[in-house]
Amino acid sequence: MVKKTFASSKMLQAGPPSSVVMVTCIDSKGKPNIITLGMYMPISHDPSLICIGVSPNRYSHRLIEETGEFVVNVPSIELKDAMHLCGTKSGKNCDKFKEAGLTPIPAERVKPPLIKECFSNLECRVVQRHECGDHTLFVGEVLAARLDEEYLTKDETLDVVKAKPIIQKNHVYWTVGGKH
Amino acid sequence: MVKKTFASSKMLQAGPPSSVVMVTCIDSKGKPNIITLGMYMPISHDPSLICIGVSPNRYSHRLIEETGEFVVNVPSIELKDAMHLCGTKSGKNCDKFKEAGLTPIPAERVKPPLIKECFSNLECRVVQRHECGDHTLFVGEVLAARLDEEYLTKDETLDVVKAKPIIQKNHVYWTVGGKH
Repeated sequence: MVKKTFASSKMLQAGPPSSVVMVTCIDSKGKPNIITLGMYMPISHDPSLICIGVSPNRYSHRLIEETGEFVVNVPSIELKDAMHLCGTKSGKNCDKFKEAGLTPIPAERVKPPLIKECFSNLECRVVQRHECGDHTLFVGEVLAARLDEEYLTKDETLDVVKAKPIIQKNHVYWTVGGKH
Repeated sequence: MVKKTFASSKMLQAGPPSSVVMVTCIDSKGKPNIITLGMYMPISHDPSLICIGVSPNRYSHRLIEETGEFVVNVPSIELKDAMHLCGTKSGKNCDKFKEAGLTPIPAERVKPPLIKECFSNLECRVVQRHECGDHTLFVGEVLAARLDEEYLTKDETLDVVKAKPIIQKNHVYWTVGGKH
């Protein structure tokens, strides 16, 4: 088995693919925005904490810094086009909810709205922020979490095969295949 | 669409599934260990930085703290049984390489070995550590990265469908399905 060694600029190519999330945030005047992220992971069960990575060049970065709140919305592969649009356009001069055909609905504990069309939503308050190279790592405490009931299994866990979350690498998108 | 709200202990249930990685580390006497993690994400392209989450209760936590080095090894779904064993047994009193039938090979830049059977390996040095609830978040700078050449596409990116990385939620395992 021959191993290919990567130059430093392409090292992350050797990493696994990641789940895609759509993060909602809001500006000081109440206008919401959406940013698609490939940097998400859970980090603590008790309390419930999650991490996201956001580039300081992105408009949403400023909104999250200003309000200290965001919502992680998890899209199904059916939302691929809307997800891609929200990852490539800036919300600075447009309404991404309108352009992507998505519906904002009020959150329970935070000001940014949920995306109705996403199968689950995690309402978060920023509890830590760290500068990590070219991105900012925000650690969010999950204050409320919701999941569409049709994607719940009998034992109240996420039905991954039915929900069809998006897995990405290099902006190519898949969903999960058969169970092993 | 009815939304199910979760009690605080089950909030992460609403999060997406995540890629599984097998992290190698080493003790001060040179004995290597392996821990399977569901908490991994990239965080910076330049420099190349990645995050992992490790519980302080795990034996590997102490090794990573002591040496400041680890390797992220990415298993294919064919390694499911070895991966599961390395996530559920403690390396304190056993040799996980031997028990799981895996082969340690020397890394280029760090002391912990690579897992030969994994399709890619990211050699990391800890550059940040943060206590996040019940886990420690380690940020690793990737010093060297390798990928089996048979899983490279023509444009030198990871061939995800061929490599069959493991995606997990609630200790149920999938790999990626068709491209969308």
